[in-house]
Amino acid sequence: METIKNFDDLIAHLSQKGERKRVAIVWASDDHTQEAVAEGLKGGFVEALFVGARKEIESSDLLRPYADHFTIIDSDDKDDAAAKAVALVREGKADVLMKGLINTDNLLHAVLNKETGILPKGRVLTHVTATEIPTYPKLIFFTDPAVIPYPTQEQRMEQVRYVADLCHSFGIEEPRLSLIHCTEKPNEKFFPFTIGYKDIIDEAKKGTFGKCIVDGPLDVKTSCDLEAMQTKGIESPIAGEADALIFPDIEAGNVFYKTVTLFCGAETAATLKGPLAPVVLTSRGDSIKSKFYSLALAIISA
Amino acid sequence: METIKNFDDLIAHLSQKGERKRVAIVWASDDHTQEAVAEGLKGGFVEALFVGARKEIESSDLLRPYADHFTIIDSDDKDDAAAKAVALVREGKADVLMKGLINTDNLLHAVLNKETGILPKGRVLTHVTATEIPTYPKLIFFTDPAVIPYPTQEQRMEQVRYVADLCHSFGIEEPRLSLIHCTEKPNEKFFPFTIGYKDIIDEAKKGTFGKCIVDGPLDVKTSCDLEAMQTKGIESPIAGEADALIFPDIEAGNVFYKTVTLFCGAETAATLKGPLAPVVLTSRGDSIKSKFYSLALAIISA
Repeated sequence: METIKNFDDLIAHLSQKGERKRVAIVWASDDHTQEAVAEGLKGGFVEALFVGARKEIESSDLLRPYADHFTIIDSDDKDDAAAKAVALVREGKADVLMKGLINTDNLLHAVLNKETGILPKGRVLTHVTATEIPTYPKLIFFTDPAVIPYPTQEQRMEQVRYVADLCHSFGIEEPRLSLIHCTEKPNEKFFPFTIGYKDIIDEAKKGTFGKCIVDGPLDVKTSCDLEAMQTKGIESPIAGEADALIFPDIEAGNVFYKTVTLFCGAETAATLKGPLAPVVLTSRGDSIKSKFYSLALAIISA
Repeated sequence: METIKNFDDLIAHLSQKGERKRVAIVWASDDHTQEAVAEGLKGGFVEALFVGARKEIESSDLLRPYADHFTIIDSDDKDDAAAKAVALVREGKADVLMKGLINTDNLLHAVLNKETGILPKGRVLTHVTATEIPTYPKLIFFTDPAVIPYPTQEQRMEQVRYVADLCHSFGIEEPRLSLIHCTEKPNEKFFPFTIGYKDIIDEAKKGTFGKCIVDGPLDVKTSCDLEAMQTKGIESPIAGEADALIFPDIEAGNVFYKTVTLFCGAETAATLKGPLAPVVLTSRGDSIKSKFYSLALAIISA
């Protein structure tokens, strides 16, 4: 496949492929969720399983044209709808789980339920985002701006695995993943996690994450700009062309997310990885575009 | 005074004021340092005290026109030059210390020397940056992208004090300082530092930092965008118009610094606060503009 370099490419790829993935959507009573799903139905890559909010869905002019490609499953309250949607994933009847007008905490409660949930024991739940920044020639994938506060070495290893997989699903043959830190020097005393970076790099060399290049510590600038890297006298196979940034902690990841969207005009798409199916958890602050791209991101990685 | 809203305003303000501050420059043998200092001499706000590198300074065509406003102090090696420049500050003969072609560590060694240095006992050394982002209507001051790994409560209190002072020197009557965190909710379990934010806010209300508004935790977006704040249902006197961002740690601050400069076309100026005089510590990767603005930032805060 050709490499997907931006969100237009992603949508074109999914439409062209013409395979509909089954998306279980919890309580899609709001316009934003309905619009995002309608776009996916129109693009020919979504089969929608709406759980709850029958009245709002049946009365939606946006959704009506695609009635052949959606089903409504009744539910009287949001927590029940979340549980039913999660069950669809567990029973292999849905490929993606998507949040509508329900609190994130309530949806996650169903996802993480030890008996009826969909996070297998020992699997790491983390948040992966793809961003299209107007001043960078390709998408940047990054983790984790929203879920894991300070990743352990084991959690970071899984983050690298998820992100490498995601890059591969975008047709990036040998993605370049940069392990972020404020300088390029490991520092055991103040930043013990930077010592663990070497083990992750070694695992990558062994092929643990498939074909990919992992290096670090590097800062954001030297990861994404060859000239900045060379000016600092750094040698790295990332070569200023990072496809992905693995942030040391949630604060750093969140600053990147908020800064590129607010100040750089960047679009984003995000999904939760770890559960049996990717989970689309968009929030009120996200644009409709961002919700649609998030759905597409989850679908390509499902 | 009128509020300084960008770096052009800053240079115009200093030129108009016409007061020359004495800048001790350690080993200014490189073009970039010479150009930045020449701009300050030309602008009428720098009296240069070059320490070391006599030959390179005497042969500089850039500096020659301003010979009435600089002095060269001889020194045979860089460490000696650093010590002499630091001594000028300690003896009250220089208002600003500036790095030329010497390693940062070597210069800091002289600054931090317990007997002959210029960091008074108990004072916090931190890095403050001002950035002009094309998509924001005023400068944003932030700390700390480069020096303190994980600030203690006491260190953060001093960071707030330095930044508030700096904002005042830019003519911002009541600056709005945002204490950054990935969400707006304090969280003792995972992010104990967010609990300390309340004490800083209380201190600000008592007037400890002069006239200013301090609030948090807030993320970057809700700090700098009223609509984002309102969409999330947050109430904060920052009102999406932050003048300054106090980052929780060096990783977050560094990501902001690198992201705005690489992806948003932002200019920056930086200085070290804490020592008896502000210290201009530009690095190889910085543009000449950035070096010049850093010098100007140090001068207005001296």
